[in-house]
Amino acid sequence: MSECVFCKILAGTCDATFVTRNERVAVFMDIQPINPGHLLVVPTCHAEGLADLDPETGGELFRTAQRMARALRASDLKCEGVSLSLADGEAAMQEVPHVHLHVIPRFTGDGFGFQFSDRDFAKPRREELDATAERIRHALDASSGSPER
Amino acid sequence: MSECVFCKILAGTCDATFVTRNERVAVFMDIQPINPGHLLVVPTCHAEGLADLDPETGGELFRTAQRMARALRASDLKCEGVSLSLADGEAAMQEVPHVHLHVIPRFTGDGFGFQFSDRDFAKPRREELDATAERIRHALDASSGSPER
Repeated sequence: MSECVFCKILAGTCDATFVTRNERVAVFMDIQPINPGHLLVVPTCHAEGLADLDPETGGELFRTAQRMARALRASDLKCEGVSLSLADGEAAMQEVPHVHLHVIPRFTGDGFGFQFSDRDFAKPRREELDATAERIRHALDASSGSPER
Repeated sequence: MSECVFCKILAGTCDATFVTRNERVAVFMDIQPINPGHLLVVPTCHAEGLADLDPETGGELFRTAQRMARALRASDLKCEGVSLSLADGEAAMQEVPHVHLHVIPRFTGDGFGFQFSDRDFAKPRREELDATAERIRHALDASSGSPER
């Protein structure tokens, strides 16, 4: 945990520019912004991934992102829209192993976007979607200990 | 509102494959998945953007995404990581004007990623970040009526 750069930032042993923070959630500037005003919303307690994050804090993370989106739109920064993005795990390109929700001001022609594989524009048949949903529901039902069900 | 395709899906007048739903939040399959198992988490009440979404429902949207991420990872679908993504506004490439949080199973080599502009890898100086944060804080302070502050 002491090796985590976001924990160091939260402890004040590593530089960052904070916008706001409370006991559970902190917001600071991304040092490599997609657009000016790019923010990171993080839990103050170390949680590597979504599975390690208590749902209450998860909810607060999102509500804080909503407030930040409103502030960005109300600010004098260039902000016509907002992208929220969270990478959970290396396969999703998570770089810092401490949950962080990106809040990114967007404007037309900013050059940011998604890159897809060839496969991405295939539309599966309804039966395939139904079968996939069944596999997810099965896993959902199996995690029955959860208070969030 | 009756023109909104997600409201039609929620009302049952338009086809969709649901995974789960309750009074506030519903989860159904994206019909154009990035990877198999790509889900959309939506509020059951119409809200075009983040500014129209009550924060409690926002929090539940995220907690539901956490549950879905766990289910995807626990399922027999290919899922080594999960991307969460939300586009707020046309400039952020929001296509359906009803808030939706994408929950996307990810795996190494799936070909999905971000596209950046040339500008994106510039690292601003600390003073620039500080000045930008000040502009955001100013807008945040101005929205003083909010119960979420």
